[in-house]
Amino acid sequence: MSGIAKTPEPPYYAVIFASERTEGEKGYGLMADKMVELASKQKGFLGIESARDQDLGITVSYWDSLESIKMWKEHSAHRVAQHKGKKEWYQTFSLRVCKVERHSFFEM
Amino acid sequence: MSGIAKTPEPPYYAVIFASERTEGEKGYGLMADKMVELASKQKGFLGIESARDQDLGITVSYWDSLESIKMWKEHSAHRVAQHKGKKEWYQTFSLRVCKVERHSFFEM
Repeated sequence: MSGIAKTPEPPYYAVIFASERTEGEKGYGLMADKMVELASKQKGFLGIESARDQDLGITVSYWDSLESIKMWKEHSAHRVAQHKGKKEWYQTFSLRVCKVERHSFFEM
Repeated sequence: MSGIAKTPEPPYYAVIFASERTEGEKGYGLMADKMVELASKQKGFLGIESARDQDLGITVSYWDSLESIKMWKEHSAHRVAQHKGKKEWYQTFSLRVCKVERHSFFEM
């Protein structure tokens, strides 16, 4: 699942999730991996990209429609993770829902 | 410039840049910092978020319009960096231009 997502031709949708973690692991890595695995099985999922350093984490997931994003947002296991995220894992986060209008890829 | 970008109310635009680096530093960090500083002075720049780990780097820059994105893409110093990026720094990269339709922020 790592690396650059191979998405189909635009238009499609992106959810940009940026977050600053609290101190300590508190089961975060395990849950994050589980959520990526679960998201990738959802209807309309097109791909995911993720990077984290000491300052910030950014995860971008790609979807075929706003409806698929809504379904994933409301998925029961994801809701449990969202709740733990607000309670324990994240100091701050932002969520942005975007329509991808064009893309390009480069390979050396 | 680090952390979560404080952007105005949508709609606005996002450029999602994901990249896998080649081996070795080769002046990358210095140029990356310079580009962030220069981008932030451009007309229509709204903010930037960046994270990199061993697998992937993701930088999302936010802009008021497609016109501002085009101007930045064509900025002469940025074009020099783009050229070096393809020649030396990046194994692969993707660029996605998106319209941000909604956003939300959480603070603990």
